[in-house]
Amino acid sequence: MNYPPQQHQDDDVNHMIDVIKTYPLATLISVKDGQPLITHLPLVYEDGKLIGHIDIYNPQAQLLKHENGVTIIFAGPECYISPSIYTTTQLPTWNYIKVHLKGKVKAIESKAALKQSLITMTEFLEAPAHKYVLEPDNPRLDRNLDYIEMFEITITHWEGKFKLSQDKKPSDIKAARKELVKANQENIKQFLDKVF
Amino acid sequence: MNYPPQQHQDDDVNHMIDVIKTYPLATLISVKDGQPLITHLPLVYEDGKLIGHIDIYNPQAQLLKHENGVTIIFAGPECYISPSIYTTTQLPTWNYIKVHLKGKVKAIESKAALKQSLITMTEFLEAPAHKYVLEPDNPRLDRNLDYIEMFEITITHWEGKFKLSQDKKPSDIKAARKELVKANQENIKQFLDKVF
Repeated sequence: MNYPPQQHQDDDVNHMIDVIKTYPLATLISVKDGQPLITHLPLVYEDGKLIGHIDIYNPQAQLLKHENGVTIIFAGPECYISPSIYTTTQLPTWNYIKVHLKGKVKAIESKAALKQSLITMTEFLEAPAHKYVLEPDNPRLDRNLDYIEMFEITITHWEGKFKLSQDKKPSDIKAARKELVKANQENIKQFLDKVF
Repeated sequence: MNYPPQQHQDDDVNHMIDVIKTYPLATLISVKDGQPLITHLPLVYEDGKLIGHIDIYNPQAQLLKHENGVTIIFAGPECYISPSIYTTTQLPTWNYIKVHLKGKVKAIESKAALKQSLITMTEFLEAPAHKYVLEPDNPRLDRNLDYIEMFEITITHWEGKFKLSQDKKPSDIKAARKELVKANQENIKQFLDKVF
């Protein structure tokens, strides 16, 4: 079996946890009647588990319970790699860092646990500057609790897809890394001006 | 039905095409035996269709034919929105631009069509600078043709998820937009130093 190419697989769980903590917006996928249900939401990693919160009116909320199976994607940086950046002759490719997880999900019914979890997630996302603190007595928080469901995913399978030109020579790997940084620093204003 | 929130849905197909053309790395999802098969690859948009190429050893390659149904996600910028950036009192949230498509896929068997399609995709991805041209007589290109399958997706369903604080007042929408630009310009070197 030539797939997936071994040079692009990274089995180091700590690398994957770094991706999850740096890029917490997950793509959460359940399957119902052969169709994927897909939701984008931040998940907080803790001891082999992922904690999240979902709008009760989201159709996927019905599935995030009873130890159902879910698939989760976390996405790090990505960019097109032009052969022009290499010193050697190569074909065009795309580099990216993605983490694919599978897990079993259960609903957490307690509204007190949900409230604490929203406070904890905010602390995590506000780090390190902590310019905002979600206070337990925030009236807006309390009004929202009935419309949010908390869930916990136990991760059962980890796959790190780190496609970063690792099969090239060191100077070309370095050039690809530089390109990845550059592409992700490029100004997105022009794009936003078009669509928003 | 309160889901999805209407203020975050954008039905303008031209906005969605802008996302596809600016962020061509797609997440392509097929479902087999109740499990999602997920591949990350660039797709080129043309007249209601998406053209792509997949490693023949990728298990999903088997499914990209016979008018099978596929789901495709394109991802624009995203970032955490701290309530500290607003002039009004708000809860924390995450803003993002995502395009969800559904379509029917067919395999394109012709190796000549595949070859031309790889050249066309490279032209598109190298625009506007065109520092690299994939020449038809590139021997490496010819050697790879037997290991790549070309496919064409006819898009049957479009959904634009533009979650950009549109329900806030104009000055707060502007602050959220600024935050999105800032977050996506932040240095990723520190992250890459950890994992690669």
